Amino acid sequence: MLRTRFTETFGVEHPIVQGGMMWVGRAELVAAVANAGGLGFITALTQPTPDDLRAEIARTRELTDKPFGVNVTILPSINPPPYAEYAQAIIESGIKIVETAGSNPEPFLPHYHGAGIKVLHKCTSVRHALKAQRIGVDGVSIDGFECAGHPGEDDIPGLVLIPAAARALDIPMIASGGIADARGLVAALALGADGVNMGTRFLCTAESSIDQKVKEQIVANSELDTQLIFRTLRNTARVADNAISRKVVEIEKSGGTFEDVRELVAGARGRKVFEEGDLDAGIWTTGLAQGLINDIPTCADLITRMITEAEQLITERLADTVVPA
Amino acid sequence: MLRTRFTETFGVEHPIVQGGMMWVGRAELVAAVANAGGLGFITALTQPTPDDLRAEIARTRELTDKPFGVNVTILPSINPPPYAEYAQAIIESGIKIVETAGSNPEPFLPHYHGAGIKVLHKCTSVRHALKAQRIGVDGVSIDGFECAGHPGEDDIPGLVLIPAAARALDIPMIASGGIADARGLVAALALGADGVNMGTRFLCTAESSIDQKVKEQIVANSELDTQLIFRTLRNTARVADNAISRKVVEIEKSGGTFEDVRELVAGARGRKVFEEGDLDAGIWTTGLAQGLINDIPTCADLITRMITEAEQLITERLADTVVPA
Repeated sequence: MLRTRFTETFGVEHPIVQGGMMWVGRAELVAAVANAGGLGFITALTQPTPDDLRAEIARTRELTDKPFGVNVTILPSINPPPYAEYAQAIIESGIKIVETAGSNPEPFLPHYHGAGIKVLHKCTSVRHALKAQRIGVDGVSIDGFECAGHPGEDDIPGLVLIPAAARALDIPMIASGGIADARGLVAALALGADGVNMGTRFLCTAESSIDQKVKEQIVANSELDTQLIFRTLRNTARVADNAISRKVVEIEKSGGTFEDVRELVAGARGRKVFEEGDLDAGIWTTGLAQGLINDIPTCADLITRMITEAEQLITERLADTVVPA
Repeated sequence: MLRTRFTETFGVEHPIVQGGMMWVGRAELVAAVANAGGLGFITALTQPTPDDLRAEIARTRELTDKPFGVNVTILPSINPPPYAEYAQAIIESGIKIVETAGSNPEPFLPHYHGAGIKVLHKCTSVRHALKAQRIGVDGVSIDGFECAGHPGEDDIPGLVLIPAAARALDIPMIASGGIADARGLVAALALGADGVNMGTRFLCTAESSIDQKVKEQIVANSELDTQLIFRTLRNTARVADNAISRKVVEIEKSGGTFEDVRELVAGARGRKVFEEGDLDAGIWTTGLAQGLINDIPTCADLITRMITEAEQLITERLADTVVPA
């Protein structure tokens, strides 16, 4: 077993987190991660209404008696979802860990903390991590340039971002982006993190509810098969390389606007990829970690393998390099 | 001490390399690294002629009796330097380690190997590393997106590139880009590397011959203070953020060509920065690792600190996370 400040603070067995993923963070996956001793997060906004979220939490509880959390990602939107009602559903359901992302969680912190909920905030820069610490979150998840979804606009990879954040922060920190195996886990710990978050790796497990064709494509893909879209909007997203993402990049390069691609990137199309396995139906998220993913294990097999190999890496390969002078 | 396949194969004390850096890889720095047990490389093309390189090698020998190497970087050029003559100077000077970079070293390998020289080839992708292994180099230095100078066009950071390369390669590999401290060294070892190469970190040491103002600027800079130029030429270079690099990026974004910036980026201007400390005189290279650099130590202090802290990290912090299940 690996014990860190993160496992202690958040009360989980292993320093391995399955963070929120749109269309992916559902009961079966979250419960499988929890049963394997990791920390899984239901994605609140994958549920159409706060009541659906209550039901999904209840459904997860039927599948595990271990702790799990809920992710609430707040992104810029013209017609925002009823965030306060989702937060209320989380609190009333007795959830004790929330992952926040996308914008400043400050308005919600008193409510969460008042309900005894620990908050893990996801951010992509040292300055945002410091701000999150200042407003009182219980831990941060620092997301490098490698990550799927929104890596921010700084383009700082984990090898630099994690130690830079570790030097600045006092609260527990987990590393996110580009991690898919024991090597990445031990590297993250060496760089000063207290655990890891993995998205793409958990997306590609037996219990993840997405279509098998998507999982097989992730296995087939290398680290070279992603695209960065929406750079021109300063809302960069790392997504799978496919006909649509290449088209979006082309439109952006030739000076097009979001209006020109709005229809191409509609959320329902991404959902269609994940639910129907039509890989060119829309934009779908995957990270550079896919270059390190070669199988579709159960969450239990994945977590057990990572922990066992990480222990060996620390106590054998690394320890063996240390010799008397 | 840390012993790895790299220290064994290349016959050096510590798995820490100061790779070739234009205008920087001179006798004083290379000898200081060698005397501290690291592997330093003289930059061949910083010397105007092959005879000057012979003299620089001789000068280094006066400063150290430990092994050191010579870097030969072959970049596209209309009027290429006399590479064969530089190679001859290296061989005749009795150098036993060469770092190659920039293009395929195959034509030179028989000459180097015939002279008992081990070749460490620098590359920025798994496919190039595999090719280098196939043609018979003795080790590769894999350069992530974080690095100063030329990171290639794939934009794959070390956290993914190092383990992807480690899975594919059999020969010793060192990790380059984004590494400046013990955390980075241990992370690289965990990711499957056998050592590290550091450029920016060694540029910012007491024995580096560049102007003090440049060193102080690197200490002042964060990981956010670089620019990627020449993306439009598919010859991307990571350089310091300054008035000129911002201007080059602007010209590229507005559809300008290399001809429009040729004068701005002339090599002599970069030399002026390093030699005269005029930070806006030209383009000069620095990597993301500058975000982790806060001092200007001697090479001996730097290497001793890194090795001592790496040993502690492995045998204390990491070992302490492993607890009985």
